[in-house]
Amino acid sequence: MNYIGIDIGGTFIKAGLVDENGKIIKHSSIETKATRKAERVIEDMIKQIRDLTDGAEYKSVGIGCPGSIYSDTGTVEYSNNLYWRKVPLGQMLKDELKKPVFVSNDANVAALGEAKFGAGKGYTDVVMVTLGTGVGMGIVVDGKMFEGYRSMGGEGGHMVIRENGARCTCGRRGCLEAYASATALIRETLNAMMIDKNSLMWEFCGNDLNKVDGRTSFECAKRGDATAQKVVDEYIKALSDGVINIINIFRSQAIIIGGGVSAQGAYLTHPIQQYVDKYRYGGRESLPVKILTAELGNDAGILGAASLGFGA
Amino acid sequence: MNYIGIDIGGTFIKAGLVDENGKIIKHSSIETKATRKAERVIEDMIKQIRDLTDGAEYKSVGIGCPGSIYSDTGTVEYSNNLYWRKVPLGQMLKDELKKPVFVSNDANVAALGEAKFGAGKGYTDVVMVTLGTGVGMGIVVDGKMFEGYRSMGGEGGHMVIRENGARCTCGRRGCLEAYASATALIRETLNAMMIDKNSLMWEFCGNDLNKVDGRTSFECAKRGDATAQKVVDEYIKALSDGVINIINIFRSQAIIIGGGVSAQGAYLTHPIQQYVDKYRYGGRESLPVKILTAELGNDAGILGAASLGFGA
Repeated sequence: MNYIGIDIGGTFIKAGLVDENGKIIKHSSIETKATRKAERVIEDMIKQIRDLTDGAEYKSVGIGCPGSIYSDTGTVEYSNNLYWRKVPLGQMLKDELKKPVFVSNDANVAALGEAKFGAGKGYTDVVMVTLGTGVGMGIVVDGKMFEGYRSMGGEGGHMVIRENGARCTCGRRGCLEAYASATALIRETLNAMMIDKNSLMWEFCGNDLNKVDGRTSFECAKRGDATAQKVVDEYIKALSDGVINIINIFRSQAIIIGGGVSAQGAYLTHPIQQYVDKYRYGGRESLPVKILTAELGNDAGILGAASLGFGA
Repeated sequence: MNYIGIDIGGTFIKAGLVDENGKIIKHSSIETKATRKAERVIEDMIKQIRDLTDGAEYKSVGIGCPGSIYSDTGTVEYSNNLYWRKVPLGQMLKDELKKPVFVSNDANVAALGEAKFGAGKGYTDVVMVTLGTGVGMGIVVDGKMFEGYRSMGGEGGHMVIRENGARCTCGRRGCLEAYASATALIRETLNAMMIDKNSLMWEFCGNDLNKVDGRTSFECAKRGDATAQKVVDEYIKALSDGVINIINIFRSQAIIIGGGVSAQGAYLTHPIQQYVDKYRYGGRESLPVKILTAELGNDAGILGAASLGFGA
């Protein structure tokens, strides 16, 4: 039997027909046109599902949707990207399609996909940390998504690790997100460049600060620039502090690093692995934890969404 | 039907016959004599259970045991207080009593008891934070204990909140435990007294530093001493940082504060509640979280242990 997995984005709604082994048999993509009323978007989504299945049987529909989602009812409480507030997405699709419908936060669903079918394959307990504009955290416990009470938790990016530290978008100071996001990495890169006008980073970005991105410090550190190395070291230290905090609570078998910064590969994961080996609670005598990078890219959302219906 | 709940301590093994409403019908206590071989201690425990039930039927045995416990197998991996290493406690009792036996960490089991039958009654998602020599954390999710992969997680006390902060027993610096334990409160009280020789705290402890305890700063702050107030404020700030970090992950309905410091009641919980209301992810618009103090005292362990068999 097959399953539908849908990844709703601000620009495109991507859907896939997925088999029970996690293989995408057929892809589909439509424009979201998010400025329309929710009802219109959902009508298009229903048409998209019907086109995708083309009359064939399927077991359920799983959806990853941006925003605050009550997974128990399938209601989108609030979605900034879609301009939605209190939209009973799950119920609307269920009424129309007469199938079980599961709705969860898009980042959590993508983490579930990566954990089940990507880098986390073979593990039951995995946390995916996505380093982008913010720090997303997708927690998988015993093969299932863990989102806390009424699916409103899982906000491990908003964990203070630095007292009175940098301001975070959530209103606190010193959150992991304020130190380990790509945004924070760029901020610290710029700060370091302002202090060291001789850093290789100036040459690397052609003296154009607009060209500074999450790679600048890493690439210049690889070329031996001490100022860049310091930025990288402090970034990795903060990220490792957050990762170990999470390990001590969930005791996950693996941590998967995703998002743009994860392209640094072993240059990023190797030092985190060393911190984790040494400093997780119980140290080297406790259960081992692997630090990995994400493998699936964009398909993780569709696969994770489809898998919400597996075994349900 | 009744259940057996056992709370193994370094000095006494306390047991209770508990009904399905969480009422202790009969108590029993024997000496642990922990320096003996594990087999001898367990023999005594079996006799204790037989005396307690006196031939009457019961459904299961639940045990809270100090140390690292693999709850899935009921094996005590390591217990410092009992001098045990790799003791198959659950299996040994099961073989002898022919009943289901559940074993978990004593602090987690006590938190479960407090959550189900004490301050957390009526809530499904609760975290108990015990402020003592260390900072214990017992996490209850959807009415069940949450201990992470192979029950080796739940160590929220070992979450770095202060970069390069005070040394923690776990090998890291700046853990919640290194700031919010009673031990840390006493350390900071002594530090503050060293700096301010005019603080009321000197008079309060009769100029005897051995008499300084977790109450010193709180009691002198109530009497208007500014130095004591600063110690209390910083203690509560650190504890609140940790509590909010945990709320953002678990989105618990209530946080129960236990341990000696919780005797401060509203003087402690009121400011934490204010921090939580303002700074939890989503702020006042998100699901509310109540800050409470523990109610059950010593019976929490027996009740939590017995309840491991409820509905099993």
